[in-house]
Amino acid sequence: MRITLVDRQNHHLFQPLLYQVATAGLAAPDIAAPLRHVLRGQANVEVRLGEVVAVVPGSKHVTLVGGATLDYDYLVVATGAGHAYFGHDAWEPFAPGLKTLADALRVRARVLRAFEHAEAASSTAERDEWLSFAVVGGGPTGVELAGTLAEIARHTLKREFRHIDPASARVRLIEAGPRILAAFPESLAKKAAAQLRKLGVDVETAAPVSAIDALSLTRRGERLAVRTVLWAAGVAASPLGATLDVPLDRAGRVRVEADLSVPGHREVFVAGDLAALDFDGRPVPGVAPAAKQMGNHVARVIQRRIAAREDDAVPADAFRYRDYGNLATIGRMAAIVDLRGVRFSGAFAWWFWLAAHLFFLIGFRNRLIVLINWAWAYVSYQRSARIIFGPEGRDD
Amino acid sequence: MRITLVDRQNHHLFQPLLYQVATAGLAAPDIAAPLRHVLRGQANVEVRLGEVVAVVPGSKHVTLVGGATLDYDYLVVATGAGHAYFGHDAWEPFAPGLKTLADALRVRARVLRAFEHAEAASSTAERDEWLSFAVVGGGPTGVELAGTLAEIARHTLKREFRHIDPASARVRLIEAGPRILAAFPESLAKKAAAQLRKLGVDVETAAPVSAIDALSLTRRGERLAVRTVLWAAGVAASPLGATLDVPLDRAGRVRVEADLSVPGHREVFVAGDLAALDFDGRPVPGVAPAAKQMGNHVARVIQRRIAAREDDAVPADAFRYRDYGNLATIGRMAAIVDLRGVRFSGAFAWWFWLAAHLFFLIGFRNRLIVLINWAWAYVSYQRSARIIFGPEGRDD
Repeated sequence: MRITLVDRQNHHLFQPLLYQVATAGLAAPDIAAPLRHVLRGQANVEVRLGEVVAVVPGSKHVTLVGGATLDYDYLVVATGAGHAYFGHDAWEPFAPGLKTLADALRVRARVLRAFEHAEAASSTAERDEWLSFAVVGGGPTGVELAGTLAEIARHTLKREFRHIDPASARVRLIEAGPRILAAFPESLAKKAAAQLRKLGVDVETAAPVSAIDALSLTRRGERLAVRTVLWAAGVAASPLGATLDVPLDRAGRVRVEADLSVPGHREVFVAGDLAALDFDGRPVPGVAPAAKQMGNHVARVIQRRIAAREDDAVPADAFRYRDYGNLATIGRMAAIVDLRGVRFSGAFAWWFWLAAHLFFLIGFRNRLIVLINWAWAYVSYQRSARIIFGPEGRDD
Repeated sequence: MRITLVDRQNHHLFQPLLYQVATAGLAAPDIAAPLRHVLRGQANVEVRLGEVVAVVPGSKHVTLVGGATLDYDYLVVATGAGHAYFGHDAWEPFAPGLKTLADALRVRARVLRAFEHAEAASSTAERDEWLSFAVVGGGPTGVELAGTLAEIARHTLKREFRHIDPASARVRLIEAGPRILAAFPESLAKKAAAQLRKLGVDVETAAPVSAIDALSLTRRGERLAVRTVLWAAGVAASPLGATLDVPLDRAGRVRVEADLSVPGHREVFVAGDLAALDFDGRPVPGVAPAAKQMGNHVARVIQRRIAAREDDAVPADAFRYRDYGNLATIGRMAAIVDLRGVRFSGAFAWWFWLAAHLFFLIGFRNRLIVLINWAWAYVSYQRSARIIFGPEGRDD
């Protein structure tokens, strides 16, 4: 059995901590592990740095950028999701999203530069615009970003500027829906909103965004002068799904069979955020635990087929999603945890979140470095990665 | 007394370890400290992120990019040096140098991609070209880069590729002069060359480079097929020196008076790599210790003048350079140390180098993180920052 892993990036990225790279709490390598190193021990696995542009199930091969092709007996498509601007792609340059390390470094530079521009501003109006931050989207990422921005403004930068008071910065979390953290029980979402306000974040709900440009954001028909907007709202499935020529859901995700195979092609599987599947009458959420469970399931199905020379016509086991719960962190000593009914928030939830994320972070070394960074950040309020790499405009 | 520090970058960079960021041993933030944070305690110091484009001593003001000006009573110009391609600026895209964090991340991506290209190469000729590395310039930086590249090829990447043997990579250190490490005694330079060869580096001396392009490097009139060339050869003084309208040396450095002031303008000082000065009949070298001593000297001169309302006409104390010695690291357990006569090399020299660099690295946290990274790298041969951030061509 020979396995080829094709990825555009040379590393596995621990997405849940990406917001900390974006907010200068961690260095990029702290949350990434080289794929080749992770898989070096498996002699039958080959890692290939490249991008798949098309999958043609009938022809049993995939096409890479540059035209090269790879044949397969079994194919697993796990290209996940990117940002969606709901048809407003023009907003992207003004409201960068957060999916890759490059995104995170861009956001980091934007945020740090905003305070520099405010310090150098020639008018109070311009200064206030640079000290105004908006995070669009009240999901876990938006909440984490907003909470951390507020902490940076109020604590990290204290006493470092001479013409501005960073603590006067306004951080807004703007959610189109009726409440933030829709995936959590309302009681916990309420607690999260309260904790955000305590950290100094203005939480605006039922505030759909209708326009974003370099100088402003418009929500509820009201224009807000803001120079730094971060996008944590929409998720769009990888375009690769569409090349499979099978039914997609509204978000462009592939409607997979119960065993995660693609309708009509039982040797082609989709796992992770790109897969659309209902379980127990509810859609499986686009979260890391679900993706990992899908990966394990597909691996078992394929192994069994090969081992038993099982007829592809025989339906394989259906995927069963185990929901172990849901966590979100808000800021220092502030988080919410929902373990299938067992719900708690505040300091203990925060420690629980910290332990869980350290545990799942790949690589012993990274864990240790991250732990030290966190400990240091906690006692000093400092953030270790407050570095802008290039001259302005070179951040990406 | 009000002090304004103007810098293009928002951070102080610990240059001596930049090669480790370039070779994926350290993350960029590990060797950088935000200027604002370093200086937050000094209420009379203002940090300004910006670039000075011209200094007009007569007018007592400097001009920033964008046209803004800053008036001064005393001015210290410490803009250092960049790479020089000896009139061959066309070589820069093919042979990046190493002065900033952005440079280091670019070099890191180049080196990591080279092995990826080799793995995917369609012909053995192309594969060998991607596995061929050349470092131009046999000074400390070139030696460190070449030694580390050899270690990456031979140890770090072991067992991670399926179509190539990274250990078969050829790393060449190409020096135009008769020997490497010209700043060191010949006996130590010989030892260093021997240690480099043991690490697997081909050391070529008396090999002036006459051409570099995307596919090759020509030295001694002989063309070498190599896809990755790193530049560690020439240093050119910051162009700001020329705007001072005072005598420069051949490298474009400012010929300063004994007190480090500029001829004809005793309120303008030049410190660091941009200053050209002889002491005890030998030019003061462009190294960090000399730059720090110059900075201290200028600060004392200015303080004394202000305190004593001393007449600028009275000549101030002359700068005295204290040469505490010279270190260079070559690779694992390999380094050379020259403490004004006390010379040693090998393992002990390496430990000495390590301790000295940790000691001078800014910030407790960074020291701890760097130490852990080094310890981990030492036992595991792994390098923590083997991350390529963007898609190809986006590295800069």
